[in-house]
Amino acid sequence: MNEKLDFDAMAQRLLHSGRRRRVAVAAPEDAHTEEVIDRCMREGIADFVLFARREKAETAERIAGTCPGHAVTVTADTPEETARMAVKAVREGQADVLMKGTLNTDVLLRAVLDKENGLLIQGRTLSHITATQIPQYGKLLLFADAAVIPHPDTEQFDAILRYALNIFRKLNGHGRTPRVALIHCTEKTNAKFAHTLSYAELRRRAAEGRYGRMLIDGPMDVKTACDSESARIKGLTSDVTGNADILIFPNIEAANTFYKTITLFAGATTAGMLCGAVAPVVIASRADSAEAKMCSMLMACSLA
Amino acid sequence: MNEKLDFDAMAQRLLHSGRRRRVAVAAPEDAHTEEVIDRCMREGIADFVLFARREKAETAERIAGTCPGHAVTVTADTPEETARMAVKAVREGQADVLMKGTLNTDVLLRAVLDKENGLLIQGRTLSHITATQIPQYGKLLLFADAAVIPHPDTEQFDAILRYALNIFRKLNGHGRTPRVALIHCTEKTNAKFAHTLSYAELRRRAAEGRYGRMLIDGPMDVKTACDSESARIKGLTSDVTGNADILIFPNIEAANTFYKTITLFAGATTAGMLCGAVAPVVIASRADSAEAKMCSMLMACSLA
Repeated sequence: MNEKLDFDAMAQRLLHSGRRRRVAVAAPEDAHTEEVIDRCMREGIADFVLFARREKAETAERIAGTCPGHAVTVTADTPEETARMAVKAVREGQADVLMKGTLNTDVLLRAVLDKENGLLIQGRTLSHITATQIPQYGKLLLFADAAVIPHPDTEQFDAILRYALNIFRKLNGHGRTPRVALIHCTEKTNAKFAHTLSYAELRRRAAEGRYGRMLIDGPMDVKTACDSESARIKGLTSDVTGNADILIFPNIEAANTFYKTITLFAGATTAGMLCGAVAPVVIASRADSAEAKMCSMLMACSLA
Repeated sequence: MNEKLDFDAMAQRLLHSGRRRRVAVAAPEDAHTEEVIDRCMREGIADFVLFARREKAETAERIAGTCPGHAVTVTADTPEETARMAVKAVREGQADVLMKGTLNTDVLLRAVLDKENGLLIQGRTLSHITATQIPQYGKLLLFADAAVIPHPDTEQFDAILRYALNIFRKLNGHGRTPRVALIHCTEKTNAKFAHTLSYAELRRRAAEGRYGRMLIDGPMDVKTACDSESARIKGLTSDVTGNADILIFPNIEAANTFYKTITLFAGATTAGMLCGAVAPVVIASRADSAEAKMCSMLMACSLA
């Protein structure tokens, strides 16, 4: 069994991996992004290529200058160009991770999704996976999709599940079996809720062994997934109830509500990244704390 | 301005109203429901008619006996009959509030929804409104619909909004202006998300004065609705952002996720009731605490 995984442990592992990741940042000029870059350079986790607009070149130079030899800056004319150039650096193998600074997410996504010059892998689904430490929950929890796919169909759920399992295994090693809860408001599979039919198909595929060693159960609500006592009162107990490692949400509104509620009201630390591109992409929200952005960077570097 | 409203204040007001509410309970035999009945009788908030199955008659008698003169018991043959009889007591004016004990919610709802003998008002939408006190939020927050309407259309959103406003005004008096946040994962109105079009229509109706004095804004996410700093970072500030009294959720999955997350991870106290029937209906979940059931009872009695 691995030790309990948290973001500090993630940083330690990266450090001991003996390999500094290379990160391309589009528009690095806000204070939170600067803090993350500075910390990663000083702690020996990553080196950077900073793509900044001409009028922000001085800021970028200053950031790079805090840790000489571990960052270079490149100047662009527009926000769109910082995005295109950062994407190109990743596509051409000069960087292992792509990170958004102060850009609008749309601008970076457009460059990532570009058919000719983007980072998509043919036939792959792009999805967003979040990792969170909630003080009231004893372990790291992964969930999706709070940011990209509005209402997943069965094949999109399948892709989301595979990304989450991959991250779980990368972070925990193969010693622990991931427990996946398929989230809904009740326990009933019901054709009126298309996602519950997709859930049944995921369970069937899991039983066939298509996702490797893992445990899966649902539909169930968040409380049943994360609290044994609530599950017991409802007469629901399985290897997953009360003990979930991964929550698959039915739609973006529910996942986003979970994300915003745990960060605002439950003191949760979160990290998020895009999966399905040629490299991990960090698109932390403008309202995220420096701490959240740092955790996202740790998660992305761990996967790169 | 009224004092900050909380559940204790609700109990005090009921007590000083000089009118004990009359509550019909279907299947009152679990420990949490018993605790609520006992407290309401002792504190002078409500009198009860307890509808119990024959094999639970003794339990019901014992509960009624703890406060002589304030509860009567009636025996039924089946769980379904306890529901039908409790509904009948409300319909015939012998009770002001209907409460579910250990029954399955479905069983009680079937009796409530019965066209001939139920509690529906012709043409009215049945919806579930939750009130919550979250320690990290400075005031009572109402939200909907976490339990009844899966994916509201515009007229259902209109009904939900009216119920929430009505409860807000009953609880707070007319001195405070309710602030309503229409929840989504972004700020964009987008035809791909039908609820954002309904939200635009609600805002239009609000501007026409159709909901009385109130402030409304959205789409916005939970963090923007309840945290001024997050709203500020996103460049969004209105009379609603960071200060919402009412959250209208886009669908039951998102509302249910909010409900379960605040109770499990944020130490929230919640109360819930059905609106749109001839009387308030309490359908607290089996996994709810006695405290949550008590708060639901206080809320329903306040509205009766």
